[in-house]
Amino acid sequence: MALAQVNPTVGDLAGNADLVLAWTRRARQAGAHLVAFPEMMLTGYPIEDLALRTSFIEASRRTLESLAGRLADEGLGDLPVVVGHLDRRTLTVARLGQPVGAPLNAVAWLHGGEVLVSSAKHHLPNYGVFDEFRYFVQGDRLPVVRVGGVDVATVICEDLWQDGGPVDATARAGAGLLLVVNGSPYERSKDDQRLELCRRRAREAGCALAYVNMVGGQDELVFDGDSLIVDAAGDLVARAPQFVDHLLVADLELPSAGPVPDGEQHLDVADGTTITVERRIASTGHVPVFDRSPAEIALPLPDAAEVYGALVTGVRDYVRKNGFASVVLGLSGGVDSALVATIAADAVGPEAVHTVLMPSRYSSDHSITDAEELVKRQGLHSRTIPIRDLVLAYEKEVELTGLAAENLQARIRGNLLMGLSNEHGHLVLTTGNKSELAVGYSTLYGDSAGGFAPIKDLTKTLVWELCRWRNTQEAPGPFLAALGREPIPSAIITKAPSAELSPGQKDTDSLPEYDVLDALLDDYVERDLGRDALIAAGHDPALVERVIRLVDGAEYKRRQYPPGPKITGKNFGRDRRLPITSRWRESL
Amino acid sequence: MALAQVNPTVGDLAGNADLVLAWTRRARQAGAHLVAFPEMMLTGYPIEDLALRTSFIEASRRTLESLAGRLADEGLGDLPVVVGHLDRRTLTVARLGQPVGAPLNAVAWLHGGEVLVSSAKHHLPNYGVFDEFRYFVQGDRLPVVRVGGVDVATVICEDLWQDGGPVDATARAGAGLLLVVNGSPYERSKDDQRLELCRRRAREAGCALAYVNMVGGQDELVFDGDSLIVDAAGDLVARAPQFVDHLLVADLELPSAGPVPDGEQHLDVADGTTITVERRIASTGHVPVFDRSPAEIALPLPDAAEVYGALVTGVRDYVRKNGFASVVLGLSGGVDSALVATIAADAVGPEAVHTVLMPSRYSSDHSITDAEELVKRQGLHSRTIPIRDLVLAYEKEVELTGLAAENLQARIRGNLLMGLSNEHGHLVLTTGNKSELAVGYSTLYGDSAGGFAPIKDLTKTLVWELCRWRNTQEAPGPFLAALGREPIPSAIITKAPSAELSPGQKDTDSLPEYDVLDALLDDYVERDLGRDALIAAGHDPALVERVIRLVDGAEYKRRQYPPGPKITGKNFGRDRRLPITSRWRESL
Repeated sequence: MALAQVNPTVGDLAGNADLVLAWTRRARQAGAHLVAFPEMMLTGYPIEDLALRTSFIEASRRTLESLAGRLADEGLGDLPVVVGHLDRRTLTVARLGQPVGAPLNAVAWLHGGEVLVSSAKHHLPNYGVFDEFRYFVQGDRLPVVRVGGVDVATVICEDLWQDGGPVDATARAGAGLLLVVNGSPYERSKDDQRLELCRRRAREAGCALAYVNMVGGQDELVFDGDSLIVDAAGDLVARAPQFVDHLLVADLELPSAGPVPDGEQHLDVADGTTITVERRIASTGHVPVFDRSPAEIALPLPDAAEVYGALVTGVRDYVRKNGFASVVLGLSGGVDSALVATIAADAVGPEAVHTVLMPSRYSSDHSITDAEELVKRQGLHSRTIPIRDLVLAYEKEVELTGLAAENLQARIRGNLLMGLSNEHGHLVLTTGNKSELAVGYSTLYGDSAGGFAPIKDLTKTLVWELCRWRNTQEAPGPFLAALGREPIPSAIITKAPSAELSPGQKDTDSLPEYDVLDALLDDYVERDLGRDALIAAGHDPALVERVIRLVDGAEYKRRQYPPGPKITGKNFGRDRRLPITSRWRESL
Repeated sequence: MALAQVNPTVGDLAGNADLVLAWTRRARQAGAHLVAFPEMMLTGYPIEDLALRTSFIEASRRTLESLAGRLADEGLGDLPVVVGHLDRRTLTVARLGQPVGAPLNAVAWLHGGEVLVSSAKHHLPNYGVFDEFRYFVQGDRLPVVRVGGVDVATVICEDLWQDGGPVDATARAGAGLLLVVNGSPYERSKDDQRLELCRRRAREAGCALAYVNMVGGQDELVFDGDSLIVDAAGDLVARAPQFVDHLLVADLELPSAGPVPDGEQHLDVADGTTITVERRIASTGHVPVFDRSPAEIALPLPDAAEVYGALVTGVRDYVRKNGFASVVLGLSGGVDSALVATIAADAVGPEAVHTVLMPSRYSSDHSITDAEELVKRQGLHSRTIPIRDLVLAYEKEVELTGLAAENLQARIRGNLLMGLSNEHGHLVLTTGNKSELAVGYSTLYGDSAGGFAPIKDLTKTLVWELCRWRNTQEAPGPFLAALGREPIPSAIITKAPSAELSPGQKDTDSLPEYDVLDALLDDYVERDLGRDALIAAGHDPALVERVIRLVDGAEYKRRQYPPGPKITGKNFGRDRRLPITSRWRESL
């Protein structure tokens, strides 16, 4: 069988259908007897409120039908294709609280020019970045399709993660293979959980399990692929590399199905619902035994490479899928903008990266020379626009002091970048990191201006770590451009961080050392510990009070921040939603 | 009985508990035998991800317990107080997909210094602005408390709107009064629906129904109150005025309850669940019959007054609850900023409104004189900062043409306003309207900069209408300051709209007439009609193509826009969530 780990684009029904066609051809050439695509393949994922537009649901349904026909027209009608799509419940009464049109997050089997069967996701995730109770109604069916004499059951993503539901029915339905289609976003270390989960579910279902996931970036989400197959004992049989389009092909020895049971099966699945088994036959003849070549088992990437791969993928797809060809960013000589420039060079090529040096009266000499050295090493475009005279022009019109004066400098720079973006069509990359964003150490409409924020989910500690890691990589790869040795000058990595918005300013004037801050932020933001629990965990009580106050006070700034690739549990995007107006203070 | 239509603040547990105490005293003085407060009274509403913080849940529980004690300490222990709060399910197993800590949107009866009973919302809304499957687990109980010999049942907000659930159990539980606590946000014309719904549910339950709702602004939501009571026949008995704190007191003739049934009642409520009736006794003695004075029945506000009241309430509470004392905004001489200034003057008083005139080389003379006239009529603060020299300073450093040059002017103005905000602590009000926001006729980080956007949910057509309406109002009222006759110079209302960012520019150079545009936007944005349906509804096909393209292309700008009071079904806030990266075009 073949798992097509591909990269759909949200809303691009025609383009996504073309992808299915192209990769089905490849699967046929590879000799596969079944090919599976990710969750919501035809629409892309997540589609958010597009799910509530009747015209979009209908267009998706038409695309599915016509895709089935096109596959048959190309002589691929006998190869079953499993594909995620957007459907709707046909017999339904409009009901308050149920999404308009009763949309379904569905998976279809295409065969013989037709939709053989389609079923909908049963467990709808509604936590973290997921809002599926808003968008979908629940499915209650488990399709079991006979292919080459083997009974194959299909479920969708969350159905695998939760107990009960269609996975619970798989063993009783006598399936020989459980096929799971996924749109499962990357999160640091999640790949380990996935494999363990697949092993466990395979053993519970008593059959092999094939897991196909999408790749690519979609706004804040990055899908890492990591498609895999385990056998009935839970042993890993095949695994695809992360963050790249890939056809994972494996010859599986699967049990032949017995006679098709009479009548419908209605199974109680221990979550208060009943699942109906829907049986279909694609082909009964056994696939002739042939030389089973050992399938590929890609090794998961080491942590730094994996995070870096996610960032490059996120940037590349955000730029490309939004129709941009180039990016622009401000280069300060500091480590954050250096890393963003490097990620951008890896994502879209150094020739499409435009940097702007905007020194002020407070910029140190080394900031400029370090930035220039980085530009030279990586082969980026660069121009210098001093902001001194612009600051003077504002000072003539209005008196701004202290923080207001610091913010003004950042906002002039934001204006210049946005102006160049409007004039030349570059996407502005924002260079703030997660530590800054957490405590509000940034200027609204200043350094926070832009279209995408590649490192908004990296703590400062991780920014340094990735810079050092990137400097050790030489060979170009799927997410590394040929930037040569040490693309980031080491002076940039080792200097003390400074915003350079006032004379002799250092980050440590207003913030604790980043290793101390980042550990505390991790406990407060990611783990949601309250004040007492933070102190019990060993953080300095005075620092806890101060940091909580800073984090809670910066909610509005974070809301106005551009999106960026999600790496952790909470990237200050859809995954953490707090009121702007709130008097709740942990510290009270 | 008394319904306390009050204004809690999210997260302010202590302040909200104080409100309960103060209004319970008032209810006692008014002779009430029962007083009810809104949904989530103690925490404010909506609390979003605060519901997932263990420390917040525990603090809310402690506040409820201590409130019960404080009421008794003040001699109010014998007066039953019904109050919304945040609870958690105590016996629960952590489960994937269920919110951390199993939080409950609960309502408690406080009596005799104790929590007599607490039950949780059964129907959790998860559409529009609501995300309650993310935050709460479902309740399955209907408390029926005997007060003065009458059995009173309590349910929460959405429980009233949906069929089945605890309301369905009310008649069988033999309640003499159904008390509904609400956090039901304002939406244009929703008050009509509410009354009809209350009438219907009262008849279904066969008993009187009392509906208490909160007032006040909370980020994008505005609660309008509109608390009311209907009798068992569905006839209106009492109704509170909208948008003001109010104690609605009514003497109701209610049926005496019979003997308390033995054992627990478990009722099938036709939504696949079972509701358990929990009976408690507060007091059995009948309330002596006394002179029933006719209760007050406030008339709902006419449409323009109601919308205006919502805007003033939204602005006032956003400013106050976020700790600001004053606002600043740019005054262009156009109708949008004129209306925002007027709303601000009504919300926080003209003495707290700071306006800035920022003329450029393209500003017409009448823009400046009209703005100055408005400032004079309303008694606002005002200063003038010409931007001509600032534009020249940028032009020396970087070449920006066309739209980039237009945007630059808007961004310089944004900088100045943000600078004044940082320097003087004013909240920046953003002046864009919904028509502009829909089609992207605004500058990212320019005119869209700010902290709150009072008219982001008003079409241009409605902006004009409200200006004309406000000019007809003379007497000060709960949301009208004493601004005198015609606070908005009529020249501002009648002139042709222009952004004045290039020579002789008019909005109609790039956009259709606003009455045509607004009708189309209403069908596309509010009603979610697709391309074919829009054309079938009579809109010009070429305009449909063009406007859809504009609206779909402006999603990123809208995401970066400040929040503003929600008036319609979709204010481009939490109520409409679309991917930034999407290739879906209705027009394809």
